[in-house]
Amino acid sequence: MLICTGYGATSPSSPLAPLTFNRRDVGTSDIEIEIMFCGVCHSDLHFARDEWHFTQYPAVPGHEIVGRVKSVGEGVSRYKAGDLVGVGCMVNSCRTCTSCQEGLEQYCAEGLTGQTYGGTDNAINEPSKGGYSDRIVVDENFVLRIPENLDPAAAAPLLCAGITLYSPLRHWGAGPGKKVGIIGLGGLGHMGVKLAHAMGAETALFTTSASKVEDAKKLGASLAILSKDEAQMAEHAESFDLIIDTVSASHDLSPYFNLLKRDATMVQVGAPEHPLPIPVFPLLMRRRNFAGSIIGGIKETQEMLDFCGKHNIAAEIEMISIQKINEAYERMLKSDVKYRFCIDMATLKAG
Amino acid sequence: MLICTGYGATSPSSPLAPLTFNRRDVGTSDIEIEIMFCGVCHSDLHFARDEWHFTQYPAVPGHEIVGRVKSVGEGVSRYKAGDLVGVGCMVNSCRTCTSCQEGLEQYCAEGLTGQTYGGTDNAINEPSKGGYSDRIVVDENFVLRIPENLDPAAAAPLLCAGITLYSPLRHWGAGPGKKVGIIGLGGLGHMGVKLAHAMGAETALFTTSASKVEDAKKLGASLAILSKDEAQMAEHAESFDLIIDTVSASHDLSPYFNLLKRDATMVQVGAPEHPLPIPVFPLLMRRRNFAGSIIGGIKETQEMLDFCGKHNIAAEIEMISIQKINEAYERMLKSDVKYRFCIDMATLKAG
Repeated sequence: MLICTGYGATSPSSPLAPLTFNRRDVGTSDIEIEIMFCGVCHSDLHFARDEWHFTQYPAVPGHEIVGRVKSVGEGVSRYKAGDLVGVGCMVNSCRTCTSCQEGLEQYCAEGLTGQTYGGTDNAINEPSKGGYSDRIVVDENFVLRIPENLDPAAAAPLLCAGITLYSPLRHWGAGPGKKVGIIGLGGLGHMGVKLAHAMGAETALFTTSASKVEDAKKLGASLAILSKDEAQMAEHAESFDLIIDTVSASHDLSPYFNLLKRDATMVQVGAPEHPLPIPVFPLLMRRRNFAGSIIGGIKETQEMLDFCGKHNIAAEIEMISIQKINEAYERMLKSDVKYRFCIDMATLKAG
Repeated sequence: MLICTGYGATSPSSPLAPLTFNRRDVGTSDIEIEIMFCGVCHSDLHFARDEWHFTQYPAVPGHEIVGRVKSVGEGVSRYKAGDLVGVGCMVNSCRTCTSCQEGLEQYCAEGLTGQTYGGTDNAINEPSKGGYSDRIVVDENFVLRIPENLDPAAAAPLLCAGITLYSPLRHWGAGPGKKVGIIGLGGLGHMGVKLAHAMGAETALFTTSASKVEDAKKLGASLAILSKDEAQMAEHAESFDLIIDTVSASHDLSPYFNLLKRDATMVQVGAPEHPLPIPVFPLLMRRRNFAGSIIGGIKETQEMLDFCGKHNIAAEIEMISIQKINEAYERMLKSDVKYRFCIDMATLKAG
């Protein structure tokens, strides 16, 4: 086994702290990656604090991983030492169900069997550990290639925040001639604005905060709509082909449904803890849809990365040292970040 | 103007009683229909009692109308005296918006401007009156042809209950190789079971009532699932391509979402007064959809009637005289009808 170092939690109430842990040896189809950067997703915090009630400790979060290939198993053909690569939320799947066969491993019938952290590494029969660490061992089928023209730190959040928006934008047909709305300008939302704009859609940001209007426009939104302003909302009645809600907190979606065209879809990518009250009449009266979507498959994640390389798109990040991770969590809870924290993993050596 | 007779309410609390009222004269493109039968939809009751707060009195309900053409305007080419015809929820629309141009008048951008009752007949500037009456005058574009092989009384509910199920079944692809669920076996639900079966889908009824299992199978369901039985529900996890919820009362949809396949849709056709709490995780984890649908366009309604003629499908009805309408409303409130009341309009002459 490989002895690795990283930052993790040892109980729901303990702050993240340095620790050492095991990873499996590099198997035939495995790749060992030296981690350079790891994005900080809100779910890292949920996981570290056992807010989803499945955390096993010690818990090492991190699933927006970018690094360089350090070594490869003898059966690996697609990657070689030195390649710039990424790892997202998944490091395995059942590989046999219909969804896996169709390249939609995120909807694997077995559930997300191979989560980057919080799953099980069967080779060593231990809970899998995430990217807040020096290196990781991943099957080559779940490793992505990062375009060399992108800033590798800013590319890290593409592995979760990026694909979480890219996949529904593609699935529901965002592109030229389409009007797309993104609710919320956070880690997810700011990627939605950039990607929808790059796909050629007329892109609108919905926000409750006037202070975000200017930023949204810089990121590619041609419209920034204050969702509490009924007159502004009314101007856009029945004009949207797609609206993606990135807000996890429970909030009232009623005002948004009337903004959708007939047959158009509202997609939830944030994950509110409790059921959302959905008004039925706006759905009935225009055959509108309310749907959900999570991340994307491995094939689509590579497609997204190549798209981002071509359009020179990455996340807006605030770089932190691993020693600042607990402080970053507190700031994240107050939405005090533009728009994603990214850990410089070289700082791990400072202890 | 034509002086017509019918049954209507004069206030929210008054029972329906005989009355006379005006309809417009038969215009160039109009058809005068002698009404033979009129189905009784739950919304007739909502309307008569002003439960939707837009009723103008006197209010004559009825939008599941079947009769014979009595006279036609000089510009009418499609129908002649004696033809067996039907009228549903719509007697007009804006005719210019995208939805109207596409034959989806039910989603007219102006709203349902030409409701059979409760709209406005601009020709006489009076609230439109429905089918609980001796005759009706309707533009030929909103008149449907009833297949002569169907029992005209049992065909009447096709004009609302039938098309309300047919349209979403077609839109979301019910057919051979597909597994379709219908929630609730009432006026809408029993048509859903018959139609989905006739389309070639494997058809399941979800019910809370063991007493309906046998009926559902007679109507064409190959499965009848007791929705309160967790073990029965679990057997069908992730197996449905489409589920249509016909229940208007607020109820918990959570157990049904896990029964849908990836990318499958739950369609609401009942209209609950309050927002429905929709659990987000089952949507996210399989990219499932929750949608709404109302009736169908005129073109699709004719297609549905032709389909019913070909497959010899109509509603299961309990015939009543118009004098029993108030009693029928009370029984409808207790779901004491299998499965649709239909008024024999010849009884109107009894006073």
